[in-house]
Amino acid sequence: MGQTPIQIEGEARGGACVLVCEHASNAMPEPWGDLGLSDAQRAAHIAWDPGALGLARALAERLDAPLAAACQSRLIYDLNRPPHHSGAMPARSETTDIPGNQSLTAQDKLARTEALYLPFHAQLRALIARRLARGTVPVLITIHSFTPIYFGQPRAVELGIIHDADATLARAVLQHAQSQTDLDARLNDPYSAADGVTHTLALQATPMGLPHVMLELRNDLIADEDAQQAMAETLTPVLQNAMAQIAQTKGEVV
Amino acid sequence: MGQTPIQIEGEARGGACVLVCEHASNAMPEPWGDLGLSDAQRAAHIAWDPGALGLARALAERLDAPLAAACQSRLIYDLNRPPHHSGAMPARSETTDIPGNQSLTAQDKLARTEALYLPFHAQLRALIARRLARGTVPVLITIHSFTPIYFGQPRAVELGIIHDADATLARAVLQHAQSQTDLDARLNDPYSAADGVTHTLALQATPMGLPHVMLELRNDLIADEDAQQAMAETLTPVLQNAMAQIAQTKGEVV
Repeated sequence: MGQTPIQIEGEARGGACVLVCEHASNAMPEPWGDLGLSDAQRAAHIAWDPGALGLARALAERLDAPLAAACQSRLIYDLNRPPHHSGAMPARSETTDIPGNQSLTAQDKLARTEALYLPFHAQLRALIARRLARGTVPVLITIHSFTPIYFGQPRAVELGIIHDADATLARAVLQHAQSQTDLDARLNDPYSAADGVTHTLALQATPMGLPHVMLELRNDLIADEDAQQAMAETLTPVLQNAMAQIAQTKGEVV
Repeated sequence: MGQTPIQIEGEARGGACVLVCEHASNAMPEPWGDLGLSDAQRAAHIAWDPGALGLARALAERLDAPLAAACQSRLIYDLNRPPHHSGAMPARSETTDIPGNQSLTAQDKLARTEALYLPFHAQLRALIARRLARGTVPVLITIHSFTPIYFGQPRAVELGIIHDADATLARAVLQHAQSQTDLDARLNDPYSAADGVTHTLALQATPMGLPHVMLELRNDLIADEDAQQAMAETLTPVLQNAMAQIAQTKGEVV
């Protein structure tokens, strides 16, 4: 009955943040299979965030951070959506119908929720809670990528910096990205919390008072390992400086 | 190694809401034991919310709702607080020092977090997620009680109606409590989210977009089973009317 839904790398690392990559994989294992998609469709951004896992791993090493990554395609279950969201097990993604998601029963949805969503978030919660119980309040950073052309429209933004309820870290990351890099970096672009894309942050960071940010890289900038390593080199000091800047105010819950 | 941290009653019930009682029990089982407290201290409001479980059960039957209740004292782990909150495993509660919580190590805190907090909230999350996966968005209602005299000061409020991010249901409950009952009912009194008392709602309701409310009853009003049944009779139509009022706008996430 499928594989483990979460892979945690470097759990013992002692850095200030925890990295998450919900759309790391385009794997479509049994019992779900390929959902009726072609190889080309399964390789496209609708199935995962291309480049995000490589970037997340390169950042995790430089930031001495544990990384929690998904092991299955977002088309089977999008871990950044709650079970009743139409995008959790989407019947259509951008311009592509997903045959295997056309007529899911409540039982089908329940089975995917229990196999993937619940254990992924329970294990991520435990990873974070273990740090909190030891007296460390980690920063939560989720790593995503987006397609350069969406519904036929090219996107100019290169680095999207998105937050849930608390904008403090996102604003600091934006400031350092704009002053330290040549990237076209924007706040809450190409998406924002209002689009429902901050579910993991809402579930894992906001209730704990964790400083948090979601990074969205345009996927043409992280298309191969060399590009991912270079982007990690660029973003590491941005994140380090932003985390240092907010460290004084980083809210321990009292 | 202790007992189960959560008791779920009536999971198959099909009503519109899920009830939660985080401070249902003053049990102090091994391996934690009595934390050095006297019988009188363990019977007092510092150890649990007296009357809350009886009221919650009486409401759950009338509302055809499942009830998730804690099985251990809040002094061992307060399930309505995150692990790094000073009140999660408090060294002092109101005017009472808690001997067994004076010098907890990181390992002690981690063990209680893993034994109680993580499984309680994982199982409550699963209970809610199963309803969401079936296409039902439940209302989440947490049931608490508060002491009539706190730090020597009497409290006039009888029913506190508290919300996390979304005040919609709480405002409707207040309106019906004021128009249908003689209770001194107040919004965000004697506590509010700013006091850190809405952790369960922030963890379980807000990220899912669930309508939610925390009810705080002054515990002298629900001191025995007759009083609990009578209070449930009073509050059931209040809650039913408030839920019906918001049902049109109850946000399915789209």
